[in-house]
Amino acid sequence: MITAPRQAVFWPEPKRTIVMAPILASYAQDRWHKAVSGFEDIQSAVNGQIIAQASSSGLDFGGLVQHARNKGGPALRKLNFHQRADMIKKLALYLTERKQTLYDLSFNTGATSRDNLFDIDGGIGTLFAYASMAKKHLPDKYILAEEVETLSRNGTFMGTHILSSLQGVAVHINAYNFPCWGMLEKLAPAIIAGVPVITKPATVTSYVAHAVAQMIVDSGIFPPGAFQFICGSTGDLLDHLEGQDVLSFTGSITTSEKLRNHPIISANAVRFIAERDSLNAAVLGPDISPDMPEFDLFIRAVTQEMTVKAGQKCTAIRRIMVPETIIAEVTTALKARLDRIVVGDPQHEGVTMGPLAGLAQREDVRRHVATLAQESEIVFGDPQHCDPLGASDQSGAFMSPVLLQNLNPRDATSVHHTEAFGPVATIMPYTSLADAACLVKRGEGSLVATLCTYDDNVAAELVASLASFHGRLHILDRDCAKESTGHGSPLPALVHGGPGRAGGGEELGGIRGIRHYMQRTALQASPTRLTRLTGRWTIGAQEALRKEHPFRYNFAQLTVGDTIHTQPRTITVQDIEHFAEFTGDTFYAHTDEKAAAANPFFPGRVAHGYLLLSFAAGLFVDPAPGPLLANYGLESLRFLKPVSPGDAIQVRLTVKSKNAAREPHYGEVRWDVELFNQNKETVARYDLLTMSAQPAAA
Amino acid sequence: MITAPRQAVFWPEPKRTIVMAPILASYAQDRWHKAVSGFEDIQSAVNGQIIAQASSSGLDFGGLVQHARNKGGPALRKLNFHQRADMIKKLALYLTERKQTLYDLSFNTGATSRDNLFDIDGGIGTLFAYASMAKKHLPDKYILAEEVETLSRNGTFMGTHILSSLQGVAVHINAYNFPCWGMLEKLAPAIIAGVPVITKPATVTSYVAHAVAQMIVDSGIFPPGAFQFICGSTGDLLDHLEGQDVLSFTGSITTSEKLRNHPIISANAVRFIAERDSLNAAVLGPDISPDMPEFDLFIRAVTQEMTVKAGQKCTAIRRIMVPETIIAEVTTALKARLDRIVVGDPQHEGVTMGPLAGLAQREDVRRHVATLAQESEIVFGDPQHCDPLGASDQSGAFMSPVLLQNLNPRDATSVHHTEAFGPVATIMPYTSLADAACLVKRGEGSLVATLCTYDDNVAAELVASLASFHGRLHILDRDCAKESTGHGSPLPALVHGGPGRAGGGEELGGIRGIRHYMQRTALQASPTRLTRLTGRWTIGAQEALRKEHPFRYNFAQLTVGDTIHTQPRTITVQDIEHFAEFTGDTFYAHTDEKAAAANPFFPGRVAHGYLLLSFAAGLFVDPAPGPLLANYGLESLRFLKPVSPGDAIQVRLTVKSKNAAREPHYGEVRWDVELFNQNKETVARYDLLTMSAQPAAA
Repeated sequence: MITAPRQAVFWPEPKRTIVMAPILASYAQDRWHKAVSGFEDIQSAVNGQIIAQASSSGLDFGGLVQHARNKGGPALRKLNFHQRADMIKKLALYLTERKQTLYDLSFNTGATSRDNLFDIDGGIGTLFAYASMAKKHLPDKYILAEEVETLSRNGTFMGTHILSSLQGVAVHINAYNFPCWGMLEKLAPAIIAGVPVITKPATVTSYVAHAVAQMIVDSGIFPPGAFQFICGSTGDLLDHLEGQDVLSFTGSITTSEKLRNHPIISANAVRFIAERDSLNAAVLGPDISPDMPEFDLFIRAVTQEMTVKAGQKCTAIRRIMVPETIIAEVTTALKARLDRIVVGDPQHEGVTMGPLAGLAQREDVRRHVATLAQESEIVFGDPQHCDPLGASDQSGAFMSPVLLQNLNPRDATSVHHTEAFGPVATIMPYTSLADAACLVKRGEGSLVATLCTYDDNVAAELVASLASFHGRLHILDRDCAKESTGHGSPLPALVHGGPGRAGGGEELGGIRGIRHYMQRTALQASPTRLTRLTGRWTIGAQEALRKEHPFRYNFAQLTVGDTIHTQPRTITVQDIEHFAEFTGDTFYAHTDEKAAAANPFFPGRVAHGYLLLSFAAGLFVDPAPGPLLANYGLESLRFLKPVSPGDAIQVRLTVKSKNAAREPHYGEVRWDVELFNQNKETVARYDLLTMSAQPAAA
Repeated sequence: MITAPRQAVFWPEPKRTIVMAPILASYAQDRWHKAVSGFEDIQSAVNGQIIAQASSSGLDFGGLVQHARNKGGPALRKLNFHQRADMIKKLALYLTERKQTLYDLSFNTGATSRDNLFDIDGGIGTLFAYASMAKKHLPDKYILAEEVETLSRNGTFMGTHILSSLQGVAVHINAYNFPCWGMLEKLAPAIIAGVPVITKPATVTSYVAHAVAQMIVDSGIFPPGAFQFICGSTGDLLDHLEGQDVLSFTGSITTSEKLRNHPIISANAVRFIAERDSLNAAVLGPDISPDMPEFDLFIRAVTQEMTVKAGQKCTAIRRIMVPETIIAEVTTALKARLDRIVVGDPQHEGVTMGPLAGLAQREDVRRHVATLAQESEIVFGDPQHCDPLGASDQSGAFMSPVLLQNLNPRDATSVHHTEAFGPVATIMPYTSLADAACLVKRGEGSLVATLCTYDDNVAAELVASLASFHGRLHILDRDCAKESTGHGSPLPALVHGGPGRAGGGEELGGIRGIRHYMQRTALQASPTRLTRLTGRWTIGAQEALRKEHPFRYNFAQLTVGDTIHTQPRTITVQDIEHFAEFTGDTFYAHTDEKAAAANPFFPGRVAHGYLLLSFAAGLFVDPAPGPLLANYGLESLRFLKPVSPGDAIQVRLTVKSKNAAREPHYGEVRWDVELFNQNKETVARYDLLTMSAQPAAA
């Protein structure tokens, strides 16, 4: 029944589906595809019941890739950045209305209501954030143009870089811990970049991802071919990838290696982004004593990271480093706090930590704890037994939080290399800041570390030595704790990913995350050609001198390159004196000939920079009401040559670029403004930012 | 004798060394290491004589890596970007004085004087360019800080990204075609980033690289451990690399694959940059007829790219695509031009193309030409024979330029996949622009393509469809040809590298090239903590209110966060009217109450933005001569709220950051300026750029 479009029996009646063990379909080539064999059972993490079956057998993986390339890509590339961002925002709104359905399903994965905030609200929030960043920072265009470089003496040959959508497909292979967030945080940047997506969730929690996929499909927001979804294995999908494709993976180092070293990925230089194992550290600074607020903040942060999502977070704290002098106090405080955690059925009142994602995952964690316990001592929790509230640890994948202690971390290996992907962390002492840094680095590269300190030198020293080993550093203290988003939360605006063991990948990070799906290309051409190709006027390019003053044309009528050259205006000593007196800016360079001449930059008294700007406006402004509405800012102003009394300035004003504003009734017009003196020397140059009216019909 | 420090017998007496066949030493752990076994003979490309021997046997490769990590890295990281850039500039000057020595050696590789301009002058030029870009665009600091992101409602938790030097080593494995440029273009960005280098040239031309290495060592410019040099094979070098290291390779796809798939490179997520095979295209637009200047420009460009360095350039044109209607004319013109090429001993007068790098390389090219000739027809040149001027094609690796023609390129494979790394290219017809684009893409990703057109639509359509398949697009026409740096020349300011078959790597591209050797890390903290860690004041951070006005402190005395809050000043209608009249800026929003009120942005008449800037300066300026010398610019100005008559404005002026200027007597001070109204609402905000005097002693 899941394969029937717009009929989602699975979701409104979760109880019944547990009996039915429905088959999760894949969405391929714009149709739901239901396998007939090769099924893998999916069990509830809470009670072990089989709740769904997944299989991708019978899928034509090459067909998916071709469909994305031939249909989805071209359709997305017909939309500009703003239009794609609008789709992502629409999707966010659509999912928001349906998030209760996702919450209900998600409890089966072991997620508590708090965990759902990270996975489901966090995922939808990432869509909103990306839509908003794209509208704010990207143009309503198809390419991004970077700064212009002059490559020749006379300026007839110029260069720039443009970023354009890759003409391939983004393949997203996700981890089981965040079936919703993991899917959406990869989807948003790819779609906004104009690249179609094939997404494949981890099977054990794929019923949540499947529900999201079904909502995406049902919403009808994306064009055909822009979104496809594989439930089950990826078959021979990778064999079909090429140099315009991106493979982005989150999960274990073992799978990551297999993907990266696939002969086709390597031979075709398929872009590969990996986010894999990470033994994230939390360091309590040597300046912190138990009576300081940071001590308690540290205990809370560590406990939170150990127990949110039952510690199944790539960003969770695995290594707790504290000054050797207070390790006893920290351990006692941590144990007391962990003791308050209530493990059980996430829907049972009072439960603060749910089960792991499945029994197999729990076995993995127990095995890794056993490895860790060879070098470290378990000081809290029993990895083999717990007494979950409202459930049984026989049928459900429940596990107590486990704290280990290692008193000799310099000689230990497993604590720095073994990631027990559950509510497990190890506390260890350090002797000096250098020792702490050295221990952190033994993790060989991590996604994130928390440094808890209120001391300038401690913070500076740790950041200097640890930054290059991390994708993110979270500095926790009393000043930011109240509003801190926490150690474990990747944010849309900041990079997620880390070097070395963490995989060397980079996701999110604002607009940067979108660029991972685009190709940067150097463009070399004449300035006129560059102007036409990028939609941004470049110095030396042709100027258009139109009949009317450019302020008389509305947003739609203005064209890039429209220019006026003003009359000259001579600056007198009286002008400068009057300006000084009127504004109060009596800086000596404008008022005292002798003192000004002693200044290394000035020949004598010179005009105020703001006087030049003001007079320039006086020269180029067309005063009567018209389509030009307001000057809202100015960029990259440089005063290049002093202007002395007697000099005459003249202005060139050229439309540099146009960009849709957030409101439909205006558009942003950026002007290239250049002020010359009577010798045609440039005295100042800047970008002037204005709003122009957009006619209602346009 | 080469192993003796400061004694470089090889170079001043090239004639004698030919007899001696000297052993090229490696420079490891700050000593010259001369192997005693495992030698590979290196022959002159011109006459086949053995001119040197190379072997890296006996080198402790792990020792090199450790030395770079333990000595070179820490020493480089003690220097800031400017100090590292200064070293690169010094090196450029040092090599410039000695370039005749390099020219003399280089003739043996087959390079003509023109080729030496690309390899030797080009390499040194890249050093100069990088030193200059780093001084201009990077601070005199140790990290780069990117934009600040507000992560919380009240602004007590903020984020930014910093880039810091990787704490590993850069391993550079270079191609044989540009022994000098290839080494230096990779060296400059790594050293400026603060990362020590181990460089390994291709053996066949390693005597040129060795000479450069010896100059680098003799110059004594770099600190111990910052530069090491391997002559011969890389042994087990890769086994020692980790997640903080970078492996950058230029060469064949086969070697590239071997390096990328090395188990350690993959397991440790060593950064890997590859620049490998590329079947670069040149497209003659359908708008170009034989009587247009672009026709001849195209013929010249193709001939140049086929014959510079005897076509041994990763960027050389391999596929020539022309409208089917004029393929006969183009072929005739090309043959005529190729006929003028004089192959021979590069030191013989009149010779315009030298031999290939060696006999083995020629065999490779001949084999690839044979593959190509199965689908294409040779229409110019004989790959097996030529009659070199002043030399013999038996002992020297001489080869005629070879032009092939393929009239059915849609059905051909080898022409799109087989790179004959010599003076070889294939001409083919296309039927439409879409067909041309399709043929170009058959190369599966290239470093560069030249598009020769003088038509807007042709240029726009080709760039839109081809950009994502290329690292660089060169648009050739009459307007830029005179100053164009050409199809084949990577420039320091522009990205070099391409997707897919070209390897997916990126080098150069200005400051971006330096970032490849740095780690981007998200920093999350309170604004005060961020300010202290980045050296850049962040809104919400502590302000320092000092005894004197900040204009009274010189560059060294000023500290980030120094702030003044000014008195308020009320803006009157008279002020606005007077400003309008005085400056000539009588825009209706300032002069006509009714019309202004009809504007969607204004409540009625408002003050000019420039009036606000001018009055703000009047409020914060301390007029008497002092250490503050000049306001040289302004950045990121936004007018956030209109100011009406009767409003009172007040200014906060805070030192945002300090940066050394090019001159030692001043420093650049950036101020964060915020204008408030009487309700404490921000009405404008901007960065003010000033020069402050630096006391002579500092």
